[in-house]
Amino acid sequence: MAFVKSAVPVGELAAGQPLELPVYRLKGQGSGHPSVYIQANVHGAEVQGNAVIYQLMKLLEHYQVLGDITLVPLANPLGINQKSGEFTLGRFDPITGVNWNREYLDHDLDIEAWYAEHARLDDAALVMAFRSTLVESCQARLNNSWGVTTGHRQAVTLQAMAHNADIVLDLHTGPKSCKHLYCPEFDRAAAQYFSIPYTLLIPNSFGGAMDEAAFVPWWTLAEVAKATGRNLGVKVAAFTLELGSQERIDLADALEDAQGILAYLSHRGVIAEQVAPKSMKRHGCLLKHYRKFHSPKAGMVEYLAKVGEPLRAGKSLVNLLRMDRYGSGEVLSTVSLPEDCVPILHFASASVHQGTELYKVMTQVFEL
Amino acid sequence: MAFVKSAVPVGELAAGQPLELPVYRLKGQGSGHPSVYIQANVHGAEVQGNAVIYQLMKLLEHYQVLGDITLVPLANPLGINQKSGEFTLGRFDPITGVNWNREYLDHDLDIEAWYAEHARLDDAALVMAFRSTLVESCQARLNNSWGVTTGHRQAVTLQAMAHNADIVLDLHTGPKSCKHLYCPEFDRAAAQYFSIPYTLLIPNSFGGAMDEAAFVPWWTLAEVAKATGRNLGVKVAAFTLELGSQERIDLADALEDAQGILAYLSHRGVIAEQVAPKSMKRHGCLLKHYRKFHSPKAGMVEYLAKVGEPLRAGKSLVNLLRMDRYGSGEVLSTVSLPEDCVPILHFASASVHQGTELYKVMTQVFEL
Amino acid sequence: MAFVKSAVPVGELAAGQPLELPVYRLKGQGSGHPSVYIQANVHGAEVQGNAVIYQLMKLLEHYQVLGDITLVPLANPLGINQKSGEFTLGRFDPITGVNWNREYLDHDLDIEAWYAEHARLDDAALVMAFRSTLVESCQARLNNSWGVTTGHRQAVTLQAMAHNADIVLDLHTGPKSCKHLYCPEFDRAAAQYFSIPYTLLIPNSFGGAMDEAAFVPWWTLAEVAKATGRNLGVKVAAFTLELGSQERIDLADALEDAQGILAYLSHRGVIAEQVAPKSMKRHGCLLKHYRKFHSPKAGMVEYLAKVGEPLRAGKSLVNLLRMDRYGSGEVLSTVSLPEDCVPILHFASASVHQGTELYKVMTQVFEL
Amino acid sequence: MAFVKSAVPVGELAAGQPLELPVYRLKGQGSGHPSVYIQANVHGAEVQGNAVIYQLMKLLEHYQVLGDITLVPLANPLGINQKSGEFTLGRFDPITGVNWNREYLDHDLDIEAWYAEHARLDDAALVMAFRSTLVESCQARLNNSWGVTTGHRQAVTLQAMAHNADIVLDLHTGPKSCKHLYCPEFDRAAAQYFSIPYTLLIPNSFGGAMDEAAFVPWWTLAEVAKATGRNLGVKVAAFTLELGSQERIDLADALEDAQGILAYLSHRGVIAEQVAPKSMKRHGCLLKHYRKFHSPKAGMVEYLAKVGEPLRAGKSLVNLLRMDRYGSGEVLSTVSLPEDCVPILHFASASVHQGTELYKVMTQVFEL
Repeated sequence: MAFVKSAVPVGELAAGQPLELPVYRLKGQGSGHPSVYIQANVHGAEVQGNAVIYQLMKLLEHYQVLGDITLVPLANPLGINQKSGEFTLGRFDPITGVNWNREYLDHDLDIEAWYAEHARLDDAALVMAFRSTLVESCQARLNNSWGVTTGHRQAVTLQAMAHNADIVLDLHTGPKSCKHLYCPEFDRAAAQYFSIPYTLLIPNSFGGAMDEAAFVPWWTLAEVAKATGRNLGVKVAAFTLELGSQERIDLADALEDAQGILAYLSHRGVIAEQVAPKSMKRHGCLLKHYRKFHSPKAGMVEYLAKVGEPLRAGKSLVNLLRMDRYGSGEVLSTVSLPEDCVPILHFASASVHQGTELYKVMTQVFEL
Repeated sequence: MAFVKSAVPVGELAAGQPLELPVYRLKGQGSGHPSVYIQANVHGAEVQGNAVIYQLMKLLEHYQVLGDITLVPLANPLGINQKSGEFTLGRFDPITGVNWNREYLDHDLDIEAWYAEHARLDDAALVMAFRSTLVESCQARLNNSWGVTTGHRQAVTLQAMAHNADIVLDLHTGPKSCKHLYCPEFDRAAAQYFSIPYTLLIPNSFGGAMDEAAFVPWWTLAEVAKATGRNLGVKVAAFTLELGSQERIDLADALEDAQGILAYLSHRGVIAEQVAPKSMKRHGCLLKHYRKFHSPKAGMVEYLAKVGEPLRAGKSLVNLLRMDRYGSGEVLSTVSLPEDCVPILHFASASVHQGTELYKVMTQVFEL
Repeated sequence: MAFVKSAVPVGELAAGQPLELPVYRLKGQGSGHPSVYIQANVHGAEVQGNAVIYQLMKLLEHYQVLGDITLVPLANPLGINQKSGEFTLGRFDPITGVNWNREYLDHDLDIEAWYAEHARLDDAALVMAFRSTLVESCQARLNNSWGVTTGHRQAVTLQAMAHNADIVLDLHTGPKSCKHLYCPEFDRAAAQYFSIPYTLLIPNSFGGAMDEAAFVPWWTLAEVAKATGRNLGVKVAAFTLELGSQERIDLADALEDAQGILAYLSHRGVIAEQVAPKSMKRHGCLLKHYRKFHSPKAGMVEYLAKVGEPLRAGKSLVNLLRMDRYGSGEVLSTVSLPEDCVPILHFASASVHQGTELYKVMTQVFEL
Repeated sequence: MAFVKSAVPVGELAAGQPLELPVYRLKGQGSGHPSVYIQANVHGAEVQGNAVIYQLMKLLEHYQVLGDITLVPLANPLGINQKSGEFTLGRFDPITGVNWNREYLDHDLDIEAWYAEHARLDDAALVMAFRSTLVESCQARLNNSWGVTTGHRQAVTLQAMAHNADIVLDLHTGPKSCKHLYCPEFDRAAAQYFSIPYTLLIPNSFGGAMDEAAFVPWWTLAEVAKATGRNLGVKVAAFTLELGSQERIDLADALEDAQGILAYLSHRGVIAEQVAPKSMKRHGCLLKHYRKFHSPKAGMVEYLAKVGEPLRAGKSLVNLLRMDRYGSGEVLSTVSLPEDCVPILHFASASVHQGTELYKVMTQVFEL
């Protein structure tokens, strides 16, 4: 069994260098098994997903792989290479400010009309036809005669590859973060397989991210079919895995996440062997209960609340130090939140302007 | 007659410095005349609007001003002060990448319900009530207990001031650009007053910019009233003036634009005197015919098409030089567009990645 | 006893805001005791020194202070406020690239001539005259009719304050770093007082940094006097304290460093009470044996060597992951160093270009 | 006659992409004729030199070339590709802040000792031996077992190529600039050949730039030989050509500068044909009379003085607009200089912090 490597072009830099992605493909030995697409590092500083793909590739060499697998580490070369001082400025296009993970294509298809036209097809043929429609829509976008933006070219090239898969995993990290999963509400059972303690359940709407780009058209198709009495089901599963903090490579931790992914792939029949998920408590939160807290004032920040550990309302979140105010009551203040929560991530820097997003926290957390 | 200056707080920087806006207010000597709000430099590199406000203030000292006027130059101190190399990195928040001119509040009001509740009021009272609703909605947003982002705080503070005016002007520039105006379709007659040769006619929808934030609620209110048979009219006029290129101060040119603004204010009765608009050809284009052209490949760019001068389909737009390709046919290529157009602005740098927005052009241009 | 606060102007930002430093002064209750100058946060991301000054100020309220103390937290407002993505881009001027800690003035005095002119003065008068010369040289520089750079203005303003003190402490941090001290070779006994395990012994030459700016002229004066047979001694002690990692505020750890500083001040007679230094092993290294290691190739980095812990030659320093090379021997490689060392700091990001400074390490370390 | 292209590696980016330079070599048809090295775009925004190399290559196809010619356009791929907003952040390494044109190697050779060892060689052999020493010193630097910085690797790779030539031209531009030449004092006659109106005469000392790296060792060798009575002469000529403004490609203007270079190469016998220099007034200034003027305060800047046109003492240099000060005398101020000068370049942005370098001007200008 061997991964076949290819180089997929996604752009060209000012001085002429091609931007290319390393893509590894493994042909499944079965037929009718789900195919898989996994990408990592679309945000330039979120490098740990590369280590997870590395560990997953090494693991897969010891399993019988039935479905096709496509792996795209280092999926945003321009973002990865964009340094600013000692850190990677890889969250948005440095020219336009557009978030690299909000560049995916909204096909803007009239799925009702499409379904009316293709309703006579059996499920397998319908799926194949819809997949082709999505991929062709991506290709048409890339061939727009007025051109496409740098970020859109890259994203839609990735998206065209992802549309060919039944399972799509997008590996990210937070800034300073505990592990958490973005999981569609309809697919919440899947959250039991990954080695991830906290899950955000997201609705079926497209905001520009890869996971949404992958599953929302299929969810819509399923709804349209259901309205005609046909139980097609949502044919594509897509998740964003947030694997801890950015600017961190930890191979041992990457192995644990690779094993969680393997457990999910085993559950889905992508590999022949049974791989049990890690035994752990898993909790969930609805996206609408996921809250951002913006700093009420500026200052130096001592982050007190640990990510991944429940925090009671009124308990200390941060200390804010204002050394321009020594001698007043404002030199040191402690900030807390009005609700019980689990802090999931916090800002990466220890100084903030007023309004900087300090923490994201889950509220109304429940056991999954 | 004297401008009264105040300092409006919009934030606080990490090291503790307050971010404040200089706001100049002139009390109108009449009553029932339209009030005016003008801001400049929301994008940090787009400085010429400050010079226009300067010239306008000097001019106004020689006129009888009837309506209240509020002027906010230097409206984005964080953006103006954010240098990166020898230029200003002032188009988006350096932390989040969010465009400073997409941060205004979508009130998300149910205007039908609001109107039903207030329909009994006469026009003047209705306008006053609606204005209060908009301003209070801004204040409520700023007081959100989970905080607001740095950019949103600044934008909504500006917006609350703008909602108090009947006429809102947002002074911007393009990167390398000729003068052009963003004007609501319903208000196209206004384009005859400014000293601006090209006008984009925009629809009545909110995309986050100041002009839209100012007029869209009022347009919606007018539509709702009209549906009940009441001819209220759109009570607020709002325009974005793009006054040439960024990173440029030209006091003589600023005087010309100040005179154009004065002509519009005269037409609206804000000043007692008649000021004729500049005699010039003015052209328009629908926003849907305003096209972006993204570079089909990377390279060094010689910009050939002049902004503000019509360009025939097939005529040279740019030369692209690729010095990694000397000896091949690709070392120098000339790029053209498939449609007749008027180039309005082009990218500021002379080298581009594949996909960089090279030009924005008006197509299907007509005389206004 | 109370700190007196003042605001010292160091510049003005493009949009007009003044740049000011908060300066806290405490008048000593004795006479003839050394005076002290402490600044923090000259590099924008190195915030922990502010917390140390905070703890030191709180401690000092319980001691009898004999010498004058001047404290300047937040010493580089432009650098502290300069964000780029989620981190602070505060190491160099964003316009020029010049390191904020290489902007101090080289007085370029002919100290031999100066001494010849002033040799008749007794020690106290000589010291006072030399101090005046240094401060006046700073003032003359600031008043240069061709202007001075933004960074130089700030640095020389700080320097003029520092020249008035007998003890100068500049509080910095490394990127990811253990605590270490820059200490002049002639003053190595001082290293026994701070709560810092590793000390770099630096020669008597000026490279642009504050500590050198403070002590080198005095060391030179002492040498010149010694050459004439006069044993003046080096009248100014100056140290740079590197207090762990950047982008971190830790108030408990700051208290430990404040106590170390207090122990040194006690030893020097600045406070009346005896404060014992922390009992700990302290090690030293000559600056010429402090080595930078630049990454031999590009890749994702797992930092294996812990800062502050000795590392044998040949032991693993980092893993370099190259996911564009899976299937070859280059996908994962372990890098080690040819000499025994103590890693003191490493790069802040987990991905590096070829040539990025990965680690700084002390070699030929000895017990102090 | 054909240029032979090769790709010279200079580094590797974080995501694995090689950094390579396109190098074009033309073998001279004669023997004993000077060899030439020309590079462009070491500062990322200074792109016009690429166009000049393009025009020069096209011209050379019509001449008989006697000496070897090496051409390196796009000499700093990382810098060229580093965008920040709509401009190129290519003046310094974005990680370290080090100016890309201050990274060349100071060989730190003991040239007296070297000469003593090689004095018996005849001139041709001596030159060959010294050249080898310089190239080997570069190679040794690149092979340092502790690694070298990203910028140093690139610079020293360029330098090793340049050391193989008798004539070295480094093509730069200013920010907003007229054309000017950096020319060693001993070689001032050369300034008569280029199509450049203003020349800075620079002394024989190394500050890190390419031109100095190329000629200073040879000037020193000539001085050492002269001290022993041997008239060797300075065997290497090196110049930095500043070809107008950055972020500009102008092919017609590039042709004029290519013709100027050709005139110099003709004069030096690199081509067989006579090419006359452009007939024009040329002026000079000693480097010590080249003055930087830093903005005395912050504000918006209207640049009044035209680059390349003499300006009398006291005449208007810039207007500084301070819209936070309307109503005071400080709202608009005009700044002038105390000496007659020729403004050579000014800052690229129209807003400045206090201390920003506004203009560089030549004073005490003389006809060459």
